[in-house]
Amino acid sequence: MATLIEPVARLIEALSRLPGVGPKTAQRLTYHLLRAPEAEARQLAAALVAVRDEVVYCETCFNISTGPQCPICADPSRDHSRICVVEEPLDVLALERTGAFRGRYHVLHGAISPMDGIGPDRLRVRELLDRAAERSRAGEPYEEVVLATNPTLEGEATAMYLAERLAGEVGSITRIARGIPVGGDLEYADEVTLIRAMQGRRAFEVNER
Amino acid sequence: MATLIEPVARLIEALSRLPGVGPKTAQRLTYHLLRAPEAEARQLAAALVAVRDEVVYCETCFNISTGPQCPICADPSRDHSRICVVEEPLDVLALERTGAFRGRYHVLHGAISPMDGIGPDRLRVRELLDRAAERSRAGEPYEEVVLATNPTLEGEATAMYLAERLAGEVGSITRIARGIPVGGDLEYADEVTLIRAMQGRRAFEVNER
Repeated sequence: MATLIEPVARLIEALSRLPGVGPKTAQRLTYHLLRAPEAEARQLAAALVAVRDEVVYCETCFNISTGPQCPICADPSRDHSRICVVEEPLDVLALERTGAFRGRYHVLHGAISPMDGIGPDRLRVRELLDRAAERSRAGEPYEEVVLATNPTLEGEATAMYLAERLAGEVGSITRIARGIPVGGDLEYADEVTLIRAMQGRRAFEVNER
Repeated sequence: MATLIEPVARLIEALSRLPGVGPKTAQRLTYHLLRAPEAEARQLAAALVAVRDEVVYCETCFNISTGPQCPICADPSRDHSRICVVEEPLDVLALERTGAFRGRYHVLHGAISPMDGIGPDRLRVRELLDRAAERSRAGEPYEEVVLATNPTLEGEATAMYLAERLAGEVGSITRIARGIPVGGDLEYADEVTLIRAMQGRRAFEVNER
């Protein structure tokens, strides 16, 4: 495109490398940023640089952090006897919003996926096993490890693998419930979800909220 | 969200100000940029700054440019007797990709929209009328002004307004064809488009491509 001036072409190119952003969206965003108040583009640029300069991974759980310990690991009010294992930092955020878990986390940074050549060695699996082994050696093993990887092929395989490796090192190993999402419809649920919902049924509690 | 560290929160906030980017997408993009190669985030930041530092508007047509004249206005091989009036720089890009127009452009930077309080004075209308009047005074009025604003309520109103103001100052005033898009289906076309398609019918040419 001979008529596309170079700084604009460069920004379109940089934006279209983002996931879910195609060339058309990148164009639209670029023209928005051209017309938006000067501060908007500059704040975005500064935020981009800051995120790379200031963000590190927590040395304990590998969640994102600005210091060697993330706010959750550093919080003495959290239950230190339980770990919830998730694939991504976004999953920590999603769970934290619910307030349903008061323990600490372990972020794997992915899931085992032989198809993509991702084995346990590419994830933070070793560090999780070390955490569990260390507590076990100290005579106070984790009471519970919740496997909260995604209910996908890869997430299930990862949970299976971790359950095998953690067995004997921790009190109990649990898996988040898979079933019909709240507000969902049995009629439209896929077969595997229905099977999981049926398998995971529990005693009905009259006052359950 | 107490657990969201500050640089990450700031980038999510900056990204979610972009059009079409909701909080969820902003989160996903942020985590992508955290995990992507260092260079990707920095290149994006640099491109953002460059676009604001280096891009100006062409003094003649108000297309985006890196100098006082955009590449199209500066190109002596373009037909200087025809102007195509569009709403946005993106429209210039779209038309240039077709190669169907070899004249020059005039970018209004919007359309007249009384609902949004946008009158002709908020657009580059005065500059367009000046261009036409100047050529007219010099005894060589523009042969044609193509009104290529969008076929929306605002675009049509803008075209109507410009046609009235340009009458007498230019050779001919034309409007881009509105009709069934190529590959489209009459059955699914809306009524107004069908009316336009019928009104805009032309003599059938056997070798038309």
